[in-house]
Amino acid sequence: MKDNQKPGKNGFKFPEQRIKTKITDVKPNHLSTRGYNQEDLITNLRFAEMVFLLLRERLPDEREAKLFNHILVSFCDHAVTPPSTQSARLIASSGAGINNAVAGGLLSFGKNHAGAIEKAMKLFQKSIESLNLEECEEGDINKKIARKAIEIVEKYESESKRIPGYGHRYHSKDPRAVRLLDLAILQSSIGPHTKLALVIESILSERKGICLNVDGANAGLLSDLGFDSSLGLGIFMIGRLPGLVAHAYEEMEEEEKFRRFCDLEDIVYEGFKNRDIED
Amino acid sequence: MKDNQKPGKNGFKFPEQRIKTKITDVKPNHLSTRGYNQEDLITNLRFAEMVFLLLRERLPDEREAKLFNHILVSFCDHAVTPPSTQSARLIASSGAGINNAVAGGLLSFGKNHAGAIEKAMKLFQKSIESLNLEECEEGDINKKIARKAIEIVEKYESESKRIPGYGHRYHSKDPRAVRLLDLAILQSSIGPHTKLALVIESILSERKGICLNVDGANAGLLSDLGFDSSLGLGIFMIGRLPGLVAHAYEEMEEEEKFRRFCDLEDIVYEGFKNRDIED
Amino acid sequence: MKDNQKPGKNGFKFPEQRIKTKITDVKPNHLSTRGYNQEDLITNLRFAEMVFLLLRERLPDEREAKLFNHILVSFCDHAVTPPSTQSARLIASSGAGINNAVAGGLLSFGKNHAGAIEKAMKLFQKSIESLNLEECEEGDINKKIARKAIEIVEKYESESKRIPGYGHRYHSKDPRAVRLLDLAILQSSIGPHTKLALVIESILSERKGICLNVDGANAGLLSDLGFDSSLGLGIFMIGRLPGLVAHAYEEMEEEEKFRRFCDLEDIVYEGFKNRDIED
Amino acid sequence: MKDNQKPGKNGFKFPEQRIKTKITDVKPNHLSTRGYNQEDLITNLRFAEMVFLLLRERLPDEREAKLFNHILVSFCDHAVTPPSTQSARLIASSGAGINNAVAGGLLSFGKNHAGAIEKAMKLFQKSIESLNLEECEEGDINKKIARKAIEIVEKYESESKRIPGYGHRYHSKDPRAVRLLDLAILQSSIGPHTKLALVIESILSERKGICLNVDGANAGLLSDLGFDSSLGLGIFMIGRLPGLVAHAYEEMEEEEKFRRFCDLEDIVYEGFKNRDIED
Repeated sequence: MKDNQKPGKNGFKFPEQRIKTKITDVKPNHLSTRGYNQEDLITNLRFAEMVFLLLRERLPDEREAKLFNHILVSFCDHAVTPPSTQSARLIASSGAGINNAVAGGLLSFGKNHAGAIEKAMKLFQKSIESLNLEECEEGDINKKIARKAIEIVEKYESESKRIPGYGHRYHSKDPRAVRLLDLAILQSSIGPHTKLALVIESILSERKGICLNVDGANAGLLSDLGFDSSLGLGIFMIGRLPGLVAHAYEEMEEEEKFRRFCDLEDIVYEGFKNRDIED
Repeated sequence: MKDNQKPGKNGFKFPEQRIKTKITDVKPNHLSTRGYNQEDLITNLRFAEMVFLLLRERLPDEREAKLFNHILVSFCDHAVTPPSTQSARLIASSGAGINNAVAGGLLSFGKNHAGAIEKAMKLFQKSIESLNLEECEEGDINKKIARKAIEIVEKYESESKRIPGYGHRYHSKDPRAVRLLDLAILQSSIGPHTKLALVIESILSERKGICLNVDGANAGLLSDLGFDSSLGLGIFMIGRLPGLVAHAYEEMEEEEKFRRFCDLEDIVYEGFKNRDIED
Repeated sequence: MKDNQKPGKNGFKFPEQRIKTKITDVKPNHLSTRGYNQEDLITNLRFAEMVFLLLRERLPDEREAKLFNHILVSFCDHAVTPPSTQSARLIASSGAGINNAVAGGLLSFGKNHAGAIEKAMKLFQKSIESLNLEECEEGDINKKIARKAIEIVEKYESESKRIPGYGHRYHSKDPRAVRLLDLAILQSSIGPHTKLALVIESILSERKGICLNVDGANAGLLSDLGFDSSLGLGIFMIGRLPGLVAHAYEEMEEEEKFRRFCDLEDIVYEGFKNRDIED
Repeated sequence: MKDNQKPGKNGFKFPEQRIKTKITDVKPNHLSTRGYNQEDLITNLRFAEMVFLLLRERLPDEREAKLFNHILVSFCDHAVTPPSTQSARLIASSGAGINNAVAGGLLSFGKNHAGAIEKAMKLFQKSIESLNLEECEEGDINKKIARKAIEIVEKYESESKRIPGYGHRYHSKDPRAVRLLDLAILQSSIGPHTKLALVIESILSERKGICLNVDGANAGLLSDLGFDSSLGLGIFMIGRLPGLVAHAYEEMEEEEKFRRFCDLEDIVYEGFKNRDIED
C-alpha cells in the first residue's frame, strides 16, 4: 500500500472518488464476477468453486475444487469451545440480531485465536521459497525439505516458541487434519508446503507427541493451492461462518434470554474497599 | 425464549453454567456434527451440504442440495454497491484486520439493508400457512395462492408499502432471480411459497414493471426448502461472506491507505459559526 | 428519513456526494464544534459539557451541566455482570485489540440489554406529551401526572408486561437511582417526566416492591433535560465506555490468555449421535 | 499474560470459572468502584474524574483532573474526515442501530488510524525510561532530553519513517495540540515526556515544518500523568465516542436512507470480461 501523504503545505488531499475493482461488474440487469455472468455461475458452480473464483480470479480445476471443498468443510464448526463461538452465543443471547452475534465472533480473532493459519502459511511459504525448489532435481527436493524441517524445529525450540499449526487443546491427533491429509494423498495434492508440514510433524510427533492440527494441515494445503498467506484468515472465516450462524441461532431459539457466563456468586472482588472521598 | 426473571426478592439468579448444544460433539480426537463424524463430512460433503446439515440438523437430499447450492452462490457478491461492502472496504482501508472489515460489513445489516429476505420469508410463510393447503385439492391450491397474491398486493398498495423481495435499485429484472427460478422449475423445486412469489410478481410486473429480486426469489425457494424465516439473514451472510472477504482483500492489496469517501472539499458545514463561550 | 427511491425505470441513483453536517467545521488549522473554536472548548468545558454540546447543539446552563454530569457518571460501570461487559472481557481475552473488545460489548445492546432506557424515555415522553401540561395550572399538573401513572401501571399489568426502567436483577432499590433522584430534588431538576417516573414508582413499590433502576431514573431526568429518546442508548454508551475500557484492559493485563466461559466438561451434547452417511 | 497451555497429554483444561476483578464490587443494593460507593461518586465526581478513577484505581488530584479533562475534550470530534466517523455514518445510514454504527467506527482503528497515540506513548516512555532521569540533576535533565530528541529524529530519518504524533493531514499547526500544551504550561503540567515531545517538535518544525498533532501532544501529557501506553487507544475511544454518537445520530436524523459513498457511475470495473464456463 502506497502512503498517500504527498508533500504539501497543509496536507490537502484530493481523494480518488472512483472505486476500482476487479471482482464484480454491475450494469443494469447484468452482473458478472471475475468476467463470468453470474447466471452461469449460479447454474454451474459449486459454492466452494465460487469462493475459489472470488478469491483467485479464476475457476479451479477439478483437483483444486475437490481439495478446496474439503478444506472449507473442515473449518465449519468446533462446537462451543472456541472463544469466537462463545462470544457469538453470548451476544446472541442478549437479543441483539444474528448479524451482531456473528460479527462479535469474528472480532475475537486476533493474536491468540485463528491467528495460526496465517502464521503457519507464512512460515511454510517463506521456507519453501527460500529453498528454490524449481532448480532442484526430484530427489533433492525431499532432502532439502527435510533439512529445512529440522532447521525450523530447532529454531523454534531454541526460542522456546511453538510452531503454528501443531498441537491442539483437546486433540492429540486432530481428526480433521488426519483426514484432510489422507484425502490429499489420495488426490495427489501433496505439494512442497504440505510435505514440509508433514516432515515437521514427524519430528514433533517423535520428540513431543505433537501433531498437525486443522490449521497447520490447511496451511500446507492452501499454500500448495497457491493462496497468499494473507487470505488465510478470510478462508477460515468463510468456512467457519456456517458454524457461527448455527450456534447463534441455537442460542436464540433454545436458550433462555440473557445468558451470563457468570453471576454474582462467580465474581470475586479483589480491589479496594471502603474508601471515602474527602472533600 | 423463557424469561428467566424468577420471582424473588432481589433477583438473585443461579445460572445454568452448562451449555447445552445439539450441533457438534467434541471429545478428545473426536468431532461429530449433527451426529456424523467430521472426517466423514470432510470426505463426502459439498460445502453447501455441510451448511444445510449445520442449519437443518440433517443431510439434504439430492434435489435440496442442488437448489441450496444455487441459492448460496447467488448471494456471493453484488460488487461495490451495497453499503455492507462499502463499509467493509472502508474499514479494510484503515489497516484494521480483515476480520474487522468483514465484521463491519455485517453490522450494517438492519432495517434497510439485508432485511428483505427475512421479511419476504415471513410474508410468504405466514400467507401459505393461512391457506391450509394440505387440505386442498391440486386445482384449488393454485386458485387459493392466486387469490392470496392479489390480497397481498392490494394490502400493500393500500398501505403505500413495498412488498419485500421485489424491485431493485439497478435491475429491472434481477438476472440472479430469473436464473434461480428457471433452475427451480427445471429441478421441480417450485413449491407453494415460490408459486405465491411468482404470482405476486406477475401482478406487480403488469401493474408497475417490478419483478422479483434475488432476496424475493430466494425467500420463496428457502421457504419451500423448509427454512425458518429467522435463518434468512444467516443464510444470506454465509453466502455473502466470500464477497466481503474478496472486497476487503482487494482493498488491502490494491489501494492506497486510508480511503476516505469524502475529504475537506466534499464536506458542507451547515451548523453554527463564530460563537463565544461567555464566562 | 426520506426514502430515496425516486421513481425511475431501473432505479439509477445519483447520490449526493457531499456530506452535510452541523457538528464540526474543519479548515486548515481551524476546528470548531457547534460554532465554538475547539481551543476554547478544550480550555473551558468539562467533558460532560462537551458531550452535551455535541448532542444538543448548545452549551448547557449550570443546572443542566451538573445533572448531566451526574447521569454520565451513574452509567460508568456495573461490574462484570452485564452481558456487554462479559462479551468485552471474552473478546479482550482472545488477544484481539481493545477496540474490538469494546466494540463487541456494544454489539450486545439490543432488545434485552440496554434497551430499557430508550423505551422508558419514549414511554415518559409520549405520556407527558399527551397530557398537554402547558395548558394546565400547577395543581392540575400533579393530578394529571398521577392519573397517567395509574393508567400506565394498569395498562402494563393487563398486558402482563413490565414497565421499562423499573426493577433490577440484583437491587431491590438501585442505589444509583436513589442518589440521582435525591440530587435532582436538591438541584430543582425534577420535571414532569421524572415526576411521572416517581409516581409510577410509588405505585409499583407499594404493589410489588419494585423501584426505579438507573435506566428509569435517567430516562426521566434526560427527558426533563430535553433529550430525544433516540439519543438514550447513545448517552448510555458514552457513560458506559470507560467501564468497558477498564474491564477489557484488566482482562488483558491480569488474566491468562484465552478465557473460556466453558470448557469440555461444561458442555452437554444433546444432539444426534452415530449417524452414517450412506452413499 | 501467562500462557495457560499446561503440559498434558491432550490439553484438557479446567478453567477457573470465577472472574476476579478489582474494578467494581456488586452486592444487592450496593455498588462500589475502586472502593468508593457509587452514590458518592455520582454526587462528587466529574465525568473525567470518574474515567481517571476507573483506569488508574485512584482519584486524580486537582491538577491531574484538570489536565485529564482537557485531554478528553480535545479528542471529542474531528468532523466527518476520519475513517472511523465515516464508517459510523455509513453504517448508521443503513438503518442498523446506533450501537452498530459506533461499534463499526471503533473497528476501523488499527495500524493506520488511531494507532499513533499508543506508538507515540511507547516511544516517549521508552525513551525517557532509558535516560534514568531520577538520578540526574535538574540542568542535566534538559540536556539529556535534548540529546535524546536529536537521536530519535535522526533514527527515524535514517529509516525514512515518520515519528508518531507529528504532522496532520489538514493542519500545519494542530490547534488542539497548541492549546493543550499552552494549558499544560500554565498548569505546571509539562513533565519529561512532554518536554521530549516539544524538543522533537522544535527540531521537526525547523527541518520540515512539522508540528505535534493532538495525538502526540496527548501522548506526552498522558505519559506524564502516568498512563500505561496500552491505555492510549482506550482513552482516545472514551474521548471520541461522543463525536461518533453525534455523527451517527445526525446521519440517522438528517439524511436520507442508504447513503452510499459511491454508486454505479463511480465504480470502474477493471477485471476480466466475457469469460465462458466451458464444461
